[in-house]
Amino acid sequence: MQQLKQQVFEANMALPRHGLVTFTWGNVSGIDRDRQCIAIKPSGVAYEQMSADDMVIVDMNGVVIEGKYRPSSDTATHLALYKQYPELGGVVHTHSTHATAWAQAGLSIPALGTTHADYFFGDIRCTRALTIDEVQGEYELNTGKVIIETLGSHHPLHTPGVVVYQHGPFAWGKTAEDAVHNAVVMEEVARMAWIARGINPALKPIDSYLMNKHFQRKHGPNAYYGQGR
Amino acid sequence: MQQLKQQVFEANMALPRHGLVTFTWGNVSGIDRDRQCIAIKPSGVAYEQMSADDMVIVDMNGVVIEGKYRPSSDTATHLALYKQYPELGGVVHTHSTHATAWAQAGLSIPALGTTHADYFFGDIRCTRALTIDEVQGEYELNTGKVIIETLGSHHPLHTPGVVVYQHGPFAWGKTAEDAVHNAVVMEEVARMAWIARGINPALKPIDSYLMNKHFQRKHGPNAYYGQGR
Amino acid sequence: MQQLKQQVFEANMALPRHGLVTFTWGNVSGIDRDRQCIAIKPSGVAYEQMSADDMVIVDMNGVVIEGKYRPSSDTATHLALYKQYPELGGVVHTHSTHATAWAQAGLSIPALGTTHADYFFGDIRCTRALTIDEVQGEYELNTGKVIIETLGSHHPLHTPGVVVYQHGPFAWGKTAEDAVHNAVVMEEVARMAWIARGINPALKPIDSYLMNKHFQRKHGPNAYYGQGR
Amino acid sequence: MQQLKQQVFEANMALPRHGLVTFTWGNVSGIDRDRQCIAIKPSGVAYEQMSADDMVIVDMNGVVIEGKYRPSSDTATHLALYKQYPELGGVVHTHSTHATAWAQAGLSIPALGTTHADYFFGDIRCTRALTIDEVQGEYELNTGKVIIETLGSHHPLHTPGVVVYQHGPFAWGKTAEDAVHNAVVMEEVARMAWIARGINPALKPIDSYLMNKHFQRKHGPNAYYGQGR
Repeated sequence: MQQLKQQVFEANMALPRHGLVTFTWGNVSGIDRDRQCIAIKPSGVAYEQMSADDMVIVDMNGVVIEGKYRPSSDTATHLALYKQYPELGGVVHTHSTHATAWAQAGLSIPALGTTHADYFFGDIRCTRALTIDEVQGEYELNTGKVIIETLGSHHPLHTPGVVVYQHGPFAWGKTAEDAVHNAVVMEEVARMAWIARGINPALKPIDSYLMNKHFQRKHGPNAYYGQGR
Repeated sequence: MQQLKQQVFEANMALPRHGLVTFTWGNVSGIDRDRQCIAIKPSGVAYEQMSADDMVIVDMNGVVIEGKYRPSSDTATHLALYKQYPELGGVVHTHSTHATAWAQAGLSIPALGTTHADYFFGDIRCTRALTIDEVQGEYELNTGKVIIETLGSHHPLHTPGVVVYQHGPFAWGKTAEDAVHNAVVMEEVARMAWIARGINPALKPIDSYLMNKHFQRKHGPNAYYGQGR
Repeated sequence: MQQLKQQVFEANMALPRHGLVTFTWGNVSGIDRDRQCIAIKPSGVAYEQMSADDMVIVDMNGVVIEGKYRPSSDTATHLALYKQYPELGGVVHTHSTHATAWAQAGLSIPALGTTHADYFFGDIRCTRALTIDEVQGEYELNTGKVIIETLGSHHPLHTPGVVVYQHGPFAWGKTAEDAVHNAVVMEEVARMAWIARGINPALKPIDSYLMNKHFQRKHGPNAYYGQGR
Repeated sequence: MQQLKQQVFEANMALPRHGLVTFTWGNVSGIDRDRQCIAIKPSGVAYEQMSADDMVIVDMNGVVIEGKYRPSSDTATHLALYKQYPELGGVVHTHSTHATAWAQAGLSIPALGTTHADYFFGDIRCTRALTIDEVQGEYELNTGKVIIETLGSHHPLHTPGVVVYQHGPFAWGKTAEDAVHNAVVMEEVARMAWIARGINPALKPIDSYLMNKHFQRKHGPNAYYGQGR
């Protein structure tokens, strides 16, 4: 448990270091599948004052089982994703500038180049708007449900993130650290896509065979990028 | 008095740390409602050389009652806001890049997402132009008056800031620190709104029920964000 | 002489600190009117390795009278400005991103708000293109001449800078430090004007009475901004 | 060999310092023409943990002859360029934000000003798309070939870089350090060109005589910029 707290703490601290958060916006969680619980950032606590011990341990029903703080207000969204996708080890939510701008624009972040294809196989989808009932009901749980609806039959680790309409980005990965890594990439490709479309509004999406090559080069069975860990 | 000076000093020093000011542009004040006086940044003094003792204490008529420097040239604007709104504990003015750009564009910063709705209930309004008489007369006082006119019947803590036409942002809050917090948010949502509209000029304002949910989640009677301080 | 070198050195070192230069791009000079010579940055020397003793002393004909390095290749432009305008104590040239973009766009940086009017009374003009003869002849001298032609009858300290067409910004001031100050402001208002016009292409220039108020508030005979130095 | 490793290591470490890379994206190599081998960054290793000894030595056929890591997955592209152009001493590939955006836009970075002309004589060309066969075959080698095809009869040191369509920038120079220098310039002029065209979509390319003057002033037989090294 201490190890999970430490990992989740470090993943949370990576958010300000990568320029993804202002103040206390943003939260990262990680899961222990054996014990069926997650560690998550406490709600509204400043990064500068946070320690690993401040992480909150919550069971799969959202009940706090360890920790002196309230968990992130987005906990129910994290739990919905972990329950739906057994492949996930970490989840992250931020209001990073450019990914949030795409969410506000109500558009998917288009796959325009190899930077995108190295991590996301296809567009980073924008969800539909939540209905008034979904917002006034169990809002955070319904946010998780609409993310799952948006992913549909796509493998969650092949497009490890979405932008929630008029809200902001959620990303995930095999671990909490991996989730943050994908959130950093999403912010950067969101920025590049904004600039690229400003330069040439008539640009074309990435050629499908180039996208396939780059994604497989890093994530396929015959991947040859990196040191083959 | 020393405590107020210290708080206002720290709030002023937060401006360069958050990237809101160039040189000496920008000023923060805080009020002591019991003693009916404010502490405010001295005019044109560099942040690097400023100490808490350099803050200037001014009474509600603008008369300096303590301090070796002249107070900020915008003091009369601050005083007008404190007199009109008993809820305010701090006021801040900056020329932060993106909020100032909206002021120069002459447009309100539209409420486009939850980042905005977490702090501002509705658009951040742009004032009308001051008339030639208002500018050539008591300019700083009239700037305060036009801000008050722009807010109209809206609660000042529900939309804690405006942009003054062709000038720049003013923000406020329950304390000097809180005012700076709102100024940082205003700058960030001003930046996001610029980018989002560049991506999709036909985007829609945030759904009113989503705006309501987010604002209430943080500021309503049943708020559940943060640690319930 | 040592004092002038030190001032010019410090002004040059302020360029990378304010994010105005990449590598060795950019140069600042300062003049000693009594001795009729200037101190200027050596050409192509890295900021990290520069000391006050590396500044080059050049007489008004461009002859090096002290220093082990060649002076900046733009020295003739600086000298032309000093000769024309006895009010100048410092001159600076950079390739700062946004001001250079306006130069490449071939447009003056429009006066859109009080941030601009606090330092520049009116648009920051863009020069005409130099002719083929002007470029192939005494290029750097002719750059100075076209700046002077562009300023025309305007007071050089009322609009302390121009952008040279397809090249970049030149700014000046009462001292070398003052010149750098104006270059920082020019870059910031160039950035704001780009964003503001992106938000509202139909925006209007600043109201003339507001521009007048702000410029006079800081620079007029009855200035009341700052500590009245 | 140790010296080459050290130079290539330092050139790689300059990438994050100049803000050109996120995570492990980007790689620099340098060549020893006498020994007919190159030193190149290992694939997927974090910059913070890298030392000079981690550089991989590869012969001209791509065979590792020294080093404990796999070389960059882009090694074949680097080798193709070294074989074609005997003038090259260093090659660099990054996904720097603005240059990559031009690659995604599918457009050459236009020569718009003297900042560009000081280093690149003419537009920084965008390659054609690779065909499906080129991508599915020897992809990295074919990337090198299409760069060479794009340069055509142009001297590689007169336009020391291209953007590969839907991928990103490659740059080169006389040394590894020089290659990184050119990559930094490419990113900066890519950013300026984006902004300049946003300000004035009808802007004109730099006058050819001005481009010629600036390039020759720095790189021609009678160059007079810098200290004449």
